Parts: sequence; C-alpha cells; structure tokens
Amino acid sequence: ADEAARAAALDRQNSLTKPPGSLGRLEDLALFMAGWRATPRPRIGLAQALVFAGNHGICAQGVNPYPQAVTAQMVANFQAGGASINQLCRVNGADLSVVALDLDRPTADFTATAAMTGAETLAAMNRGAAAVDRDADVLILGEMGIGNSTIAAALAAALFGGEVADWVGPGTGSDAEGLRRKISAIERGLARHRGLTPMETLAALGGREQAAICGAVLAARAARIPVILDGFICTAAAAPLHAADPRLLDHCLIGHVSAEPGHRRLLAAMGRTAVLDFDMRLGEGSGAALALGILRAALECHNGMATFGEAGVSEG
Amino acid sequence: ADEAARAAALDRQNSLTKPPGSLGRLEDLALFMAGWRATPRPRIGLAQALVFAGNHGICAQGVNPYPQAVTAQMVANFQAGGASINQLCRVNGADLSVVALDLDRPTADFTATAAMTGAETLAAMNRGAAAVDRDADVLILGEMGIGNSTIAAALAAALFGGEVADWVGPGTGSDAEGLRRKISAIERGLARHRGLTPMETLAALGGREQAAICGAVLAARAARIPVILDGFICTAAAAPLHAADPRLLDHCLIGHVSAEPGHRRLLAAMGRTAVLDFDMRLGEGSGAALALGILRAALECHNGMATFGEAGVSEG
Repeated sequence: ADEAARAAALDRQNSLTKPPGSLGRLEDLALFMAGWRATPRPRIGLAQALVFAGNHGICAQGVNPYPQAVTAQMVANFQAGGASINQLCRVNGADLSVVALDLDRPTADFTATAAMTGAETLAAMNRGAAAVDRDADVLILGEMGIGNSTIAAALAAALFGGEVADWVGPGTGSDAEGLRRKISAIERGLARHRGLTPMETLAALGGREQAAICGAVLAARAARIPVILDGFICTAAAAPLHAADPRLLDHCLIGHVSAEPGHRRLLAAMGRTAVLDFDMRLGEGSGAALALGILRAALECHNGMATFGEAGVSEG
Repeated sequence: ADEAARAAALDRQNSLTKPPGSLGRLEDLALFMAGWRATPRPRIGLAQALVFAGNHGICAQGVNPYPQAVTAQMVANFQAGGASINQLCRVNGADLSVVALDLDRPTADFTATAAMTGAETLAAMNRGAAAVDRDADVLILGEMGIGNSTIAAALAAALFGGEVADWVGPGTGSDAEGLRRKISAIERGLARHRGLTPMETLAALGGREQAAICGAVLAARAARIPVILDGFICTAAAAPLHAADPRLLDHCLIGHVSAEPGHRRLLAAMGRTAVLDFDMRLGEGSGAALALGILRAALECHNGMATFGEAGVSEG
C-alpha cells in the first residue's frame, strides 16, 4: 500500500467537520482505500463482483442434502438476475459476472485422491486471475458450489489444525447425520493428504472456485485493486495464500462474519476482523456486496465533507 | 404492526432461492418493514431524514470544549451540504431536513432549574411531530447540539439509575477535567430533579432536540412509519418514551451502537440491539443514515429475488 497516500488521506480526515476519529471504522475504510488505490481521494468508479462456481467430488460422500445440479441451476439464476447477489450488486452498484468452472466435471473425491491435479489447480487460478477487470477500483469475490462448506472446513482444518468438528457447521441445511458424514469425510481427507505446502493443500482438498478465488486475489493485488472477500467459504478459499504469506491478503477486507460457526474461528486464526456481522450464511458474495455499500458510504464522507476551514466551523 | 403482513413476508422469504434464514438479519429487517408498513412487499419510496438542533444551558457548567456557536455553524454546514449526514443521506437516498430549535435561546441550566417548562417541552415535541412527512416509508432521526452528550447521560442516569460516571463519556472531545465537570453537573441535576415521571424528566434534564425527537417518534408511530434512531444521544432522547411504555419504540430500529460508552449500557437497559457497530460517535443521524443502506439492501433482496419455483431451482 502507498503509505504517503494513506497519510494524506488521514490528514484530510482530520480536517473534516467532525471530531477526529468520530466516523470510526468508516475512517479506517477510507484510509485502506487510499493506500491501495495510491491516492488521498480514492473513488469507486467500477466495482466488479465475481462469483466463481464449481462442483465437488466430495459430494459422493453424502456431505450435502442438495443435488449437485443445484450449482448449475443457481448459476442460471445468477444469469437471470434472480439471486440475492444480483439484488445486492444492483443496490450497491457492482457489475456482476459469474464464472462457471467445468460444472459438468466435478473435482475428484478427496477421500480417495487429490481433488485437483497441479495443472487443474493452476488452470482454475488462471481463470480467476483472467476474470479480474484491471480497471476496477474494488473487487467483490463470491462463490457457489454444492458441497463447498465441506471444502472450506477441510482447508481450514488442514491449514490451521484443531478438531475437524470445530470447523464444520450445517452449511446449506445439513442435519446431525449429515454433519457426521461431513466430519468423517474431512477426517479421511486430512489423513490421506498430510505434510503438504499451502498450495498443495489447495489442490488436494480445494476446488476450482477456491483456486479461482486465489487467482483473482493475486491478480487484484498486482493491479492494486482492493478486494472484499465474502464469508466462510471465500475466506477459507483464500486461506492457502494467508498460510503461504499473510501479507498476500493485506489488500483484502472480509465483508462479513458468517453464521457458519467455522468462520469466526477462521478469522481468529488469520488475525482478521470482518466489516459486518449480520448472521448471514448464504454465500454467492452476498456479505461482500453488502459491505460494498459501507465502503461507498465511507468514501462519500471522505470525499464529500467540508473541512473546518471550508465550512467556517470552529475547531474548539 | 400488521402481523398478517409480516407472516406473508415470512412466507415469501422462505420461498426465495436461498436456504431459509440464510440472509440472517436482512430477513428480520424485511419482516420488520412488512409489519409496520402493513404490506408483504414493503418498498422505500421516500426516506426522510430529520436532524434536530438545540442549545443547552448546561454548557454554563463547562461540560463541552466547543463554544455553543458551533451548533449554528454546523446547522449552516448541514444546509450547505458539507457535513457527514449530507453525504450519508445522498449515498443512501434519504431526503434531509434540518430543524434548528431556537438556537439563540438555549434551555435553562438544569443544575439550577428545569431545563424546559412543560410548555416549552410540548412546543418542541410539536415541532418534531410537525416535521414528519406522512408520506415517508422510513424516518431517520438525528441531532446536533453542543453539550448534548451531557443531556443524554443525564436522561439515561435519571431514567435507568446507576452511577453517573458509568453513563458519561468523552462526547465531542472532553478531557479528564471536562469529564469531571460533566459528572458533577449531572449529579447536581439529578439531585435537584427527583421523583419525576419520564416526561417530566425530559423537561427537567432534556433539551429541545430531545423533545422534538420524542414528538417525531410518536408522529411516525401514528403514521406507521418505521424509524431509525441514531446513536447514544438519539436513543437517550427517546428513552423517556421507553420509560413511559417500552412498546412506544417498537417501530424504531437503533441504527448503530456508538463508541460513546453510555450507549451500549443504555441499549442493554432498554433491551435493544443496534443494526451496526462501527465505533462511530459523530451524531447528526450518521449511524442511522448508514443503516438505511442496509435496510434498502434487505428490501432489494426481499422484493427482487426469484422464488425456487420461478427460477427452477431444486429445493433439496
């Protein structure tokens, strides 16, 4: 980040007609944008939202009550404008694109073998990177994939340790028996795939949408585009980058903390906090798109407010 | 609230293309609006924002480092479009009006006498009620008044008890000596004005903008207009209504929990939670206007999403 731009933005914040610091985290968000966009007066022209969709071989283990066909059905719903993410992108002014990643060819079942080969992982990362619009001022990332709350818990457990049961939640409606199947599948996957590097872990236990999210995060970083990650699944998708080097996610905000219980634990493990906490657990990028509205509000205040001098207000 | 409309809104939420409940508090907000607007598909056409400004005799006790002239200077800043509330109303689509309440005639010093007579209190309540546009679909309330964090702490302590020091915070930049003066002034005010009804407490310790907020809340209730209250000072202004009958605030959301420490305590005493928690402490209605963006997002999802049937998505 550009520390001079950030410092100039702080000077501006302290000159605006309000007690210094009184806009709280809105001020932090303005400074974050100033640093990454390398300007004291950052503005959001283009806000891009990308939702990556994938299918997962782990579904063969009965980890999800929905059929895998729902992934493609929801992609069609995104394309028709009927999903939550469409409404949230419209109201907060984000351009949404959906990238369906080989939905008719799910990854392999990680209890039997690595979910993806190295080449498949790299291809998905490249798909993610290629989807980023270099003219965007902020990038919202989301995902869709039946079974991918199991993928998220598996990645988190592999990268950060602890009991598998502590990382697993109901996802999209699993009952107690479904939870037991999720935990068992993850434990078998962890036993099979040990001693790997973070990026090898992504290949062994992740999926194409997880790899695409990593690719998009890295491409955004190269273009100094700040990123808003969505909830548990999106944060877990980017967690291999954190495990490789936590600074790789310095340009990322976490849009919200999910009601899926593993997310709060994951944020603690990564030393991160989220913008919003609304008991949401929908995915699609919904929490990130909601946080975009807060980010826009922060910049409206930063750029639009009068200074004490301009307004003729006494500074006390 | 209209329970049939609320129930119909819940039926709709459960038919939308998402796991039931997965939009978390956004769903709660949609149901809240449905109940108060008495329709299963509530929409926000007109969002009205009202900022009431007043001056306070308690400033004679040195409770605030800013001169009282700043109240009128900030009113001019609101009218010129340079304050935080202007930017937040613009970005979230609220029509802002500022009502300056006899700024050249501060209330009386409550350490010496009641801040307002009964007639003055009623007149300010009527100003507040008259300012409400009956065609609004939601009402954002805010305030401006040098010294009114002292008023808020005094009202909270009088209505809910406890140590004065626990209700008092730095407000707009008081230092340790300023805090001692605030606490002393409030303690003397409480000692002078004992055994009062909630509305007598409003007159004795409150101010014109506090009375106007009470009047606006009641007028909105009569027109079934949901209200978003801002932070500590706004919540404390409405607290006499809560003390009279907690149901009088059933149509009110609290936009955010303030960094001013008394607010969290006040919300606990009133059994309420806030929409946002962003360490803001600016007033003007800023936290309420920020929360309006969340409310709009909730209704966009509620009204704009496809049902499972419409989208052809399997319900699992």
